[in-house]
Amino acid sequence: MSDIMINYDRFLSKAALKSQGSAIRKMGVMAVRVPDMISFAPGYPDPAAYAWDEFREITARLLDGHQGSVLQYGPTRGHKPLIEACMEILEGRGIRAAFEELMITTGSQQGIELVGKVLLDPGDVVLVELPAYTGAISAFRNLGASLAGVRQEADGIDLEDLDRVVSRERAAGRAVRFLYVVPNFQNPTGLLLSLAKRKALLEYASRADLLIVEDDPYGALYFDDTATAADTRPMKADDTEGRVIYLSSFSKTLAPGFRVAWLAAPEPLVSKLELFKQTEDLMSPALDQHVICEAHRRGVLMGRLPMLRRFYQEKRTVMQDALRAKLGDLVSWPEPKGGFFLWATLPDQVDCDAMLVRAVDQRVIYVAGSAFYVDGTGHNRMRLSFSLPSHEKIVEGVARLTAVVQAELSRPTAPAVHA
Amino acid sequence: MSDIMINYDRFLSKAALKSQGSAIRKMGVMAVRVPDMISFAPGYPDPAAYAWDEFREITARLLDGHQGSVLQYGPTRGHKPLIEACMEILEGRGIRAAFEELMITTGSQQGIELVGKVLLDPGDVVLVELPAYTGAISAFRNLGASLAGVRQEADGIDLEDLDRVVSRERAAGRAVRFLYVVPNFQNPTGLLLSLAKRKALLEYASRADLLIVEDDPYGALYFDDTATAADTRPMKADDTEGRVIYLSSFSKTLAPGFRVAWLAAPEPLVSKLELFKQTEDLMSPALDQHVICEAHRRGVLMGRLPMLRRFYQEKRTVMQDALRAKLGDLVSWPEPKGGFFLWATLPDQVDCDAMLVRAVDQRVIYVAGSAFYVDGTGHNRMRLSFSLPSHEKIVEGVARLTAVVQAELSRPTAPAVHA
Repeated sequence: MSDIMINYDRFLSKAALKSQGSAIRKMGVMAVRVPDMISFAPGYPDPAAYAWDEFREITARLLDGHQGSVLQYGPTRGHKPLIEACMEILEGRGIRAAFEELMITTGSQQGIELVGKVLLDPGDVVLVELPAYTGAISAFRNLGASLAGVRQEADGIDLEDLDRVVSRERAAGRAVRFLYVVPNFQNPTGLLLSLAKRKALLEYASRADLLIVEDDPYGALYFDDTATAADTRPMKADDTEGRVIYLSSFSKTLAPGFRVAWLAAPEPLVSKLELFKQTEDLMSPALDQHVICEAHRRGVLMGRLPMLRRFYQEKRTVMQDALRAKLGDLVSWPEPKGGFFLWATLPDQVDCDAMLVRAVDQRVIYVAGSAFYVDGTGHNRMRLSFSLPSHEKIVEGVARLTAVVQAELSRPTAPAVHA
Repeated sequence: MSDIMINYDRFLSKAALKSQGSAIRKMGVMAVRVPDMISFAPGYPDPAAYAWDEFREITARLLDGHQGSVLQYGPTRGHKPLIEACMEILEGRGIRAAFEELMITTGSQQGIELVGKVLLDPGDVVLVELPAYTGAISAFRNLGASLAGVRQEADGIDLEDLDRVVSRERAAGRAVRFLYVVPNFQNPTGLLLSLAKRKALLEYASRADLLIVEDDPYGALYFDDTATAADTRPMKADDTEGRVIYLSSFSKTLAPGFRVAWLAAPEPLVSKLELFKQTEDLMSPALDQHVICEAHRRGVLMGRLPMLRRFYQEKRTVMQDALRAKLGDLVSWPEPKGGFFLWATLPDQVDCDAMLVRAVDQRVIYVAGSAFYVDGTGHNRMRLSFSLPSHEKIVEGVARLTAVVQAELSRPTAPAVHA
């Protein structure tokens, strides 16, 4: 298109000059290109579990031409009946939010990014778990934020470490705005934050004058053999001071191809979030909002949840059994009690970043753990998503992975030192 | 939800503290609430012209359950066949862009905002027309940019004023990054940038080392009685240096409820835009992208354009005839040669902002001109959208507007002084 190529660096914003891609997304692109690849990388739901028939029927009705709003511009905050549907869903989770406290977003990714825009100036500190969701890390980094990692224990975030980090950052003169946390079946660890810690976090937020961004895409997908709905009760349900911004989504339960998620937050924050959403995309997709709303009204979402829980629980069990059978003591993980992810720790001499190219050679991929750590650690960890592949593919993928790990352990010059 | 309400101001980013809503969006919300309102405010296409039957048929096929990608996560840059369709459309407009130079966006609004994120640091200058599209103004302002207005003449932007403004801003030590311009049937004026000026603008961008953001949502909707396709040739088609970022959309031709638009830009910029899109919404809606792609493949878009041109041309003519018949010499405007908007100038003593509440009383609304001016002028102008209302509503709405204007002119204490 152009004869003389300009060097565009002089036109770029500081954030653009510094920006980097998401490791997860790169893996996803890579997986598509290699034939017969088995991918444990992206956290995709399984289209085999989508309500295709219902979506087809609902969409045909919506597109009969009698209701222009189905394909028209609409309110930035979202389609009113869908907001009301979200209020009902929230009530089922113990959260009583007013209409004015809700907003529909174009996926929860938009909610995360908007929260960053409204709360962060460049250099401000966001507290994230070690490890944390890469999409949140990238969004906050692209806004110029400084990310401070807080350790996790078996039952979620380490509260003593949290206090240490907040004190350290504030002592260094930085503004600490909020903690970003995924309490239910965290991405990437699958960990469930204990109810006691949820209470303690709310108390800490009040004491330390912080906001909490509670991202909950997986809460409805708890596994009956190890968890109950009560275990997933959002902090937002007990947020008496208005310190919690709660995000949830239809992407993991209905389908991500509809870009429809929502957030609940104190009204003064929702007003600001709306203004920034308006300049980002005016509104979330109208047809998608109508379809999701009608699917909720017909009971499609609630009706399918028990099936979806069993469906993903079985996949988790298949992966756990295969890992135990094939890798034995070489791998350990906290049992996923819900969600899409198994977080594997390998022997210390394994570098999961370096090993990835060899895994691709064996036609299996994962996300290297380091992508989720803001402090540069995690070299011997990997996130394995069990949500998308079939049982057969999970078994075969674990076999391939086992070959890769065993070869890695017998490499003559395995790197021994890590930062 | 909360017992003790926090004052959130201390948590807000500088941009959030300063942010303001879009006047157009507020009008849209207002119009919905008043019964029997005739709205000339929002630039909505008319759902009567949507391809409902084709959309219904295409969607039923896509949702047959055989193709998971229709509702799955997908590439941030967009659905590959849709990008290829956009390449074809661009070629029809004289633009030869490589696959790597395109990206699908969640409406052109997202494209505008992403360009701002990638090119602007707080305090940097964006050049915009006087008047300019409010959605662009708000997006750049939310990113902390400083907006400098450039006058327009009958054939578009005033090149001498452009040079004056650039020199002034640079002399003041500010970085001038790009010019945002809508060359075809501009929002809000409906003006068409002459071909000579397009050439001159490209030359000026090279001389002054600027980028050009060419926003073209209305180009395909030229009116045969006053314009031809050749008149709408994008600057991007003659961009030999890679200085133009071109944005276009399916919102005005197929439907805005699908949030699908696209941009074409030099590859190094598209790479950066992709990274920021990824943190905003991961990807544009998948079903929407598939529907648009299939509608293009079946010739639905190209086949309908002649009808759409006539359809909106007729509405324009109805509005012009009604304005001439009812308001006569009290109102003047440049004839819209395409697009959705008529830009009306009223006698100097009329304040269109103040008059709006009285117009609402008469159940007619418009967007006050001042919303589009970054320099605080435009008090006696208004944007009238003829795209959505029926012929009958246009005639009745102009009659109501006439009553409002005549009452305004006979008000005893009409304000006389304006900044």
